[in-house]
Amino acid sequence: MAFLNDNYLKLKAGYLFPEIGRRVKAFCEANPEAAKRLIRCGIGDVTEPLPAAVISAMHKAVDDMGSRETFHGYGPEQGYEWLRHAIAENDFRSRGLEVADDEIFVSDGSKCDCGSILDILGDKNKIAISDPVYPVYVDTNVMAGHTGPANEAGAYGKIVYLPCRPANGFIPEPPKKHVDVVYLCSPNNPTGAAATREQLEAWVKYALANKSILLFDAAYEAYISDPALPHSIYEIPGARECAIEFRSFSKNGGFTGVRCAFTVVPKTLNAQTKALEEKPLHPLWARRMTTKFNGVSYVVQRAAESLYSTEGKQQVRALIEHYMGNAQILRKGAKKAGLKVFGGENAPYIWVRTPKDVTSWQAFDKILGEANVVITPGSGFGSKGEGYFRISAFNSRANAEEVARRLTELRW
Amino acid sequence: MAFLNDNYLKLKAGYLFPEIGRRVKAFCEANPEAAKRLIRCGIGDVTEPLPAAVISAMHKAVDDMGSRETFHGYGPEQGYEWLRHAIAENDFRSRGLEVADDEIFVSDGSKCDCGSILDILGDKNKIAISDPVYPVYVDTNVMAGHTGPANEAGAYGKIVYLPCRPANGFIPEPPKKHVDVVYLCSPNNPTGAAATREQLEAWVKYALANKSILLFDAAYEAYISDPALPHSIYEIPGARECAIEFRSFSKNGGFTGVRCAFTVVPKTLNAQTKALEEKPLHPLWARRMTTKFNGVSYVVQRAAESLYSTEGKQQVRALIEHYMGNAQILRKGAKKAGLKVFGGENAPYIWVRTPKDVTSWQAFDKILGEANVVITPGSGFGSKGEGYFRISAFNSRANAEEVARRLTELRW
Repeated sequence: MAFLNDNYLKLKAGYLFPEIGRRVKAFCEANPEAAKRLIRCGIGDVTEPLPAAVISAMHKAVDDMGSRETFHGYGPEQGYEWLRHAIAENDFRSRGLEVADDEIFVSDGSKCDCGSILDILGDKNKIAISDPVYPVYVDTNVMAGHTGPANEAGAYGKIVYLPCRPANGFIPEPPKKHVDVVYLCSPNNPTGAAATREQLEAWVKYALANKSILLFDAAYEAYISDPALPHSIYEIPGARECAIEFRSFSKNGGFTGVRCAFTVVPKTLNAQTKALEEKPLHPLWARRMTTKFNGVSYVVQRAAESLYSTEGKQQVRALIEHYMGNAQILRKGAKKAGLKVFGGENAPYIWVRTPKDVTSWQAFDKILGEANVVITPGSGFGSKGEGYFRISAFNSRANAEEVARRLTELRW
Repeated sequence: MAFLNDNYLKLKAGYLFPEIGRRVKAFCEANPEAAKRLIRCGIGDVTEPLPAAVISAMHKAVDDMGSRETFHGYGPEQGYEWLRHAIAENDFRSRGLEVADDEIFVSDGSKCDCGSILDILGDKNKIAISDPVYPVYVDTNVMAGHTGPANEAGAYGKIVYLPCRPANGFIPEPPKKHVDVVYLCSPNNPTGAAATREQLEAWVKYALANKSILLFDAAYEAYISDPALPHSIYEIPGARECAIEFRSFSKNGGFTGVRCAFTVVPKTLNAQTKALEEKPLHPLWARRMTTKFNGVSYVVQRAAESLYSTEGKQQVRALIEHYMGNAQILRKGAKKAGLKVFGGENAPYIWVRTPKDVTSWQAFDKILGEANVVITPGSGFGSKGEGYFRISAFNSRANAEEVARRLTELRW
């Protein structure tokens, strides 16, 4: 009989967001009146419509597809040259960072890329992951067989967990021991923390000394408001020799339902074979994408391109300001409610300490039951997230204000 | 130092289509006059614009994304329920085949799914693949470490190759020995052959007896004109216990640049753990898709849905008739030129025997140099493709007629 991949059976059954969905559904069914005033600040999904520049670019691209002369069939798997160029030019070179057009690989999502990157890495790597963390980093390593089974706290064997706490500003320090691959996310999901230049310099120094690879997830870079904070790992000298960067249009252009992202693989980044021979990873990723992917929809790539137009940039800026305005309101509301608040200044997430000994899920149930607001329990992101919850700033202004108001009414 | 995936280094450097691109480019640069009359019948990419129903559905969906009330962020990773329902209803249940909505997984391409399916299968499976074959089946198994290195003829160790020859109508018979996973593609790329009911019955019987899994690629089912031929593996009793089916909108709706496909994983399909415990694969694929994929663009799913409308169905039919009209013209042209011709009756590919002892690449160079037509050398699809070439019927009518004419002028 054919064999299945046993590693999948190590995955914990209750994935975070389905469990939230289940509890919300049960609550709404039992409390139809409260359900009417429910406000969702759980999943980090954008709520505002696409920028006008995108709508207009998509209409034009759809028309292109309706005529034989301008029809587009298969495009290059790595993305159209005009989009790769616009990305490299606007996001990197115009900021003084050396990234070539053909080091940009356009994809249908950072989630996909964060998982797929393991395809080109070997099975013997020691993997380090922050705690709390975006669950996809962990789960894809479990699926790939890079971990042991989970213990009772939900931590998987073989993974080196890097604790994120108030003391380190929720950005982990490099570990004392050697690891081969490190996931870093800044601005961070879920904690809303953003790494300083010094923190990233320490990581690049560690990676170069250990010949490790940093998988740098910068999906939220557009939310950085502090001009001193790096937007890209490539702002740190030496990063081109040790880092892959993931970027997304989901949270700047509001593309969560449009699906476009990109990954930067510098040609100067090497890894070793089992025979300890050093080789560049760029050709492996190019081969992975050409063999297992068929490019992003033409219409979607035109949409992404339009974000780099003058109007597109202004409209993205307005979206970010909208959500960050919400973040400020939510921060204030949570503080006024007497809660200890982190994040929300360079990221669209507020990371809140639960009062007393209230657990993350207890806080979830209380806020759902009494304030009729859906948040995300911190423990869903890892054991070090216990005692926290995340509030997403992706919402309308009116909802953000109402959530802030309701938080202050809660009695813990 | 971090390790790379050594299996990638087993891949042969010269992937088929880049090599074709290189030769065509060199020819055109050396022969600018001939380059002007070049006609491409190489890559199987559609040429006609999207159906009007699709254009209109996409415009409407773009407008949805421009307004807060109708905006769509993250959708279900497996696809919107309305699309899964339309697919299951139109492609299966209305044809009397039992497929539930939630057995349909919408994706951005069959190429992606054919590769990703290996994620949920174990490493110890014995894999059988037709020869010649769509290279992605082989290459993704090489990348996953399921093969040994390639020999001089380009065949990889551990893979069981199933020869496709005129004698078996280019549809392989089940092997004498046990294999765990079998790739079948019907109508076939590259040979244009379509499996009969009896041939598929033999495969289902084999799979049930051996508890093997059939990976059935039906991306070209819309091109079947013979009413006796099955469109889906699920037309064969027992297939729900042994087969996964891949379908695509690329070649019926002309979606090669739009990107939408789907995979059917019946809930009745099992595989075994290392401890020989039988478990269903459906939850594993659901977990794979929710963890490593983030759904297809909303606009694209609306486009796919429109193919099932009354006008959409008529317009798809017209596209198929257009391409199959080309196929008939090309078949006739090649026959008139004295060549031995296969396929092109239930598939948009003509599979042509080269005359005398001409190799596939010699034929490629001759047809490029003398007729200024790009075809695909059969040897690029596997060693048993040597001595053949593939002509794609994806073209304008005028080009198909001109290619047919030029073929008859060739002197071998």
